Amino acid sequence: MKRYRNGEIWDFEREMPVSRDGSDVILGLDGGATSTVCVCLPVMPCSEQLPDPLPVLARAVAGCSNHNSVGESAARETLEQVMAEALSKAGSNRFAVRAVCLAVSGVNHPIDQQHILNWLRDVFPSHVKLFVHNDAVAALASGTMGNLHGCVLIAGTGTISYGFTEDGREARAAGAGPILGDLGSGYGIAAQALTAVIRAYDGRGKESMLTSMILDTLGLSSPDELIGWTYADPSWARIAALVPVVVSCAEAGDQVANKILLDSVDELAASVKAVVRRLELCDGKGSFPLVMVGGVLEANKSWDIGKEVINCILKDYPGAHPIRPKVEPAVGAALLAWNFFMKESEDGHRYC
Amino acid sequence: MKRYRNGEIWDFEREMPVSRDGSDVILGLDGGATSTVCVCLPVMPCSEQLPDPLPVLARAVAGCSNHNSVGESAARETLEQVMAEALSKAGSNRFAVRAVCLAVSGVNHPIDQQHILNWLRDVFPSHVKLFVHNDAVAALASGTMGNLHGCVLIAGTGTISYGFTEDGREARAAGAGPILGDLGSGYGIAAQALTAVIRAYDGRGKESMLTSMILDTLGLSSPDELIGWTYADPSWARIAALVPVVVSCAEAGDQVANKILLDSVDELAASVKAVVRRLELCDGKGSFPLVMVGGVLEANKSWDIGKEVINCILKDYPGAHPIRPKVEPAVGAALLAWNFFMKESEDGHRYC
Repeated sequence: MKRYRNGEIWDFEREMPVSRDGSDVILGLDGGATSTVCVCLPVMPCSEQLPDPLPVLARAVAGCSNHNSVGESAARETLEQVMAEALSKAGSNRFAVRAVCLAVSGVNHPIDQQHILNWLRDVFPSHVKLFVHNDAVAALASGTMGNLHGCVLIAGTGTISYGFTEDGREARAAGAGPILGDLGSGYGIAAQALTAVIRAYDGRGKESMLTSMILDTLGLSSPDELIGWTYADPSWARIAALVPVVVSCAEAGDQVANKILLDSVDELAASVKAVVRRLELCDGKGSFPLVMVGGVLEANKSWDIGKEVINCILKDYPGAHPIRPKVEPAVGAALLAWNFFMKESEDGHRYC
Repeated sequence: MKRYRNGEIWDFEREMPVSRDGSDVILGLDGGATSTVCVCLPVMPCSEQLPDPLPVLARAVAGCSNHNSVGESAARETLEQVMAEALSKAGSNRFAVRAVCLAVSGVNHPIDQQHILNWLRDVFPSHVKLFVHNDAVAALASGTMGNLHGCVLIAGTGTISYGFTEDGREARAAGAGPILGDLGSGYGIAAQALTAVIRAYDGRGKESMLTSMILDTLGLSSPDELIGWTYADPSWARIAALVPVVVSCAEAGDQVANKILLDSVDELAASVKAVVRRLELCDGKGSFPLVMVGGVLEANKSWDIGKEVINCILKDYPGAHPIRPKVEPAVGAALLAWNFFMKESEDGHRYC
């Protein structure tokens, strides 16, 4: 176990008694492009039914931990800090941890997974079970209460679709970031709206309400100032924050905004359909959970992107069973860590 | 005039005699998203005909100087360094300079212009005439030999269309960078090709030759490695370098690559048409220069993007007179500086 080089991330452990028994805990972490959430749960005994509500011991929040967006060392520091904060708030420490599930956006390849596991191994005692996944996995688990079966669609700043079969096969679609065509993401929707403003301004595109609404929101006086605004800060979340403006314009009847949302619905549904088709999740009459997560899908407005996406998927796959999770993805990650720990370790069997 | 803080950019001037007479020079600089070129020309006397070839005294090359891409201080250092190198190679110095024209991509607003003029004023003696423009202006001047009339289309890493009327009005279209929809740019073409590879891989899009050709070119073994490759380095030029691969696929009959190029032709032609329409450059039978510049338009291949763009524009505006410049944009910038100097300063009149 390491002492952190430049900070005092784990110093709190010196100030509390080191527990090596009794109150064992699990950490679940959800790292998205906008924020990172870590929750600490007690190790619960095996039972048919999970307690409701779940006994969350502590919750900590930090900024972006996607290494593609903020770089590897900043991502790592954020992840370590938010875990330390959750443990500290729970009055616990690293010796009490049985399992950790880090579900982080930007984990797209076994190499990414290995990179994170390499430093994570140094942070925790050797008995701790460590699992690293894409953040989509935590979102699925938040809808299925830790059961890895079905398909999840996340559409926040970014978008990804992820699916698992009961026999352990998995598939994903989209989730490749803004340069590689995540058009239905919050970033994608907002970037298309900004582009529509520029095109109308220079004579390539139709005039729309988006121009005045976006300029007002950003406090700019002319569309040519949008260029400077856009490149002044490369944060994807800053651009994605304009989605509500696009939805408002579409609700007010603006055709350009409406087309952007309709195209986005098609894109989001296409990524789910690609996963369902490849995994054969819905052969014949079979039903499967379809977990829907993220700001883009949660708008309780008259133009409801999430509802339109579900309708579009149900046309092809009537067996899809839409779920809006009642717990957050970080809790899903913790439930995954708990499930893995119970099934895969001898330690876990003690609890059953 | 300033000594550079951290470097020895202008130290060469101490080692050569300071000329305050005789061999007056002009600097022309073209700063694109990929590279920056500076040329040094002598102040030529007024005459009907410019000498052919033009007596270029020196030429220096540096990296990207678009402040939106590399940041303001890096852009500034690159610009100052490349001017110093050109003067040093010409055996000249800042006292011999009569006029400077900096034509830099990323200059989209009077504020950008003023930022550059502010530090440029400190670099040169007060008698030097300074002009700052978007790099499109230099490209137009390179086709019209310093005459600001007509329309220019640049399609390299980025794309922009710029036009000037003889009575001094100007207009532009596109040039707002990759986030804001420059789809016909080299970056835009390559990003669409990368997106097509990801979509085919995850089941959202059609299989194409692009997958094997792009993976081979980049030395990657699977499309999911493309995500890491793409975000490892945010340079737009690195992505745009894949354009020849897309053209090769289209030439070999690949439909996905072909559609990307056809869409790009439409986008590029649309930006020229928007400028011509707004400036009324082609009312009735009027003819106007249409200068075509940049790697995307210069491919001497059977799939010739530049030729297709010209055909598309000529359908609407038969008065367009396509020009492929014989001198580079940096020389165009120098000719602009020379023209301005001759017309606008009393000093300049001495030469006529």
